[in-house]
Amino acid sequence: MEKKIITISREFGSGGRTVGRMIAERLGIPFYDKELVDQVALESGFAPNFVEEHGEHSPGKSLFSYAFIPQGVPGVMNGLSTADFLWNIQCSVILQLAEKGPCVIVGRNADYILKDRPDCLHAYIHADMDFRADRIVRLYGESEKSPQARLQEKDKRRRVNYQHYTGRAWGQAQNYDVCLDSGRLGVEQCADIIIGMVERSK
Amino acid sequence: MEKKIITISREFGSGGRTVGRMIAERLGIPFYDKELVDQVALESGFAPNFVEEHGEHSPGKSLFSYAFIPQGVPGVMNGLSTADFLWNIQCSVILQLAEKGPCVIVGRNADYILKDRPDCLHAYIHADMDFRADRIVRLYGESEKSPQARLQEKDKRRRVNYQHYTGRAWGQAQNYDVCLDSGRLGVEQCADIIIGMVERSK
Repeated sequence: MEKKIITISREFGSGGRTVGRMIAERLGIPFYDKELVDQVALESGFAPNFVEEHGEHSPGKSLFSYAFIPQGVPGVMNGLSTADFLWNIQCSVILQLAEKGPCVIVGRNADYILKDRPDCLHAYIHADMDFRADRIVRLYGESEKSPQARLQEKDKRRRVNYQHYTGRAWGQAQNYDVCLDSGRLGVEQCADIIIGMVERSK
Repeated sequence: MEKKIITISREFGSGGRTVGRMIAERLGIPFYDKELVDQVALESGFAPNFVEEHGEHSPGKSLFSYAFIPQGVPGVMNGLSTADFLWNIQCSVILQLAEKGPCVIVGRNADYILKDRPDCLHAYIHADMDFRADRIVRLYGESEKSPQARLQEKDKRRRVNYQHYTGRAWGQAQNYDVCLDSGRLGVEQCADIIIGMVERSK
């Protein structure tokens, strides 16, 4: 079956977002990343930077998780934690985006949310610590002091979030059609391989 | 760096062995699977079918694991269990094969044994239960009665063996350059993708 929707899950700093953008540009289809965050924010009433920070992170269960009631929220939180509330909205937004037509969706556990759609291609991009550390210092302007510690923290938070909401293990090959090491293959080759798969599915 | 040695790890029934054979034939390089088993058998003094059965399975620690002293074994087992003894020989054989030149090696935890060689491309082939169950009944002549139970047993034994000898999790994307779902992509496309990576590394 033709693969029209490409989800890209990625380790922080692996270049997965760049891979996704390249694919979307070359296929001429929408790319949802920051745009998705903004849409979630709009629907939830949270500030975009709050959504970006918490949308893929560990589901905190402290008092604070329940304390921040968004301003101008269109619905009610029904006693859900902030994280669970965000998760429900993210699921709804991603399912709607997929209904709209071909696209690339980066992150936000979209591989799991769209797992029952046979027209999706699910990719996972990873790379070793050295490649990612160099990349976040060079491209994101992260402090050179301890990029490894920052990566470990991000990895852990994504892993916990993914496991909590999907019941699956983060980075397990079986959850994806294709997993690629961008550090060994290069970001461009990763994009080429995934585009090749999409073309071949037609 | 040019990738000269391709290791293929695979779930039982996924067609990973076929992918490996296709790659070796098309690149005109040796393919080590049964051949590797025979060589290990030769060096260990074990019967080939014993090596095939135990070489990728869970490291038994029962009395029996120590009881079968191979006939005509060239060295001594030095108090090692049968599984540990086989593992040492497999490591040695695989390192020697890699030294010989370009090749495809299927299974036997070769991805781990050769992890420090930068001229290796490590691939993992997996597929869902239905695809694999159909395949082992159709191609291997396995009983139709409960192929799922057979797959689960094989999966478990490979997972335990891999984890025991490598300290890594079986099927974790980070251990490989590329992981592919042969059920979704097809065995031929898996071979094409890996060959493409090898060609591009030249």
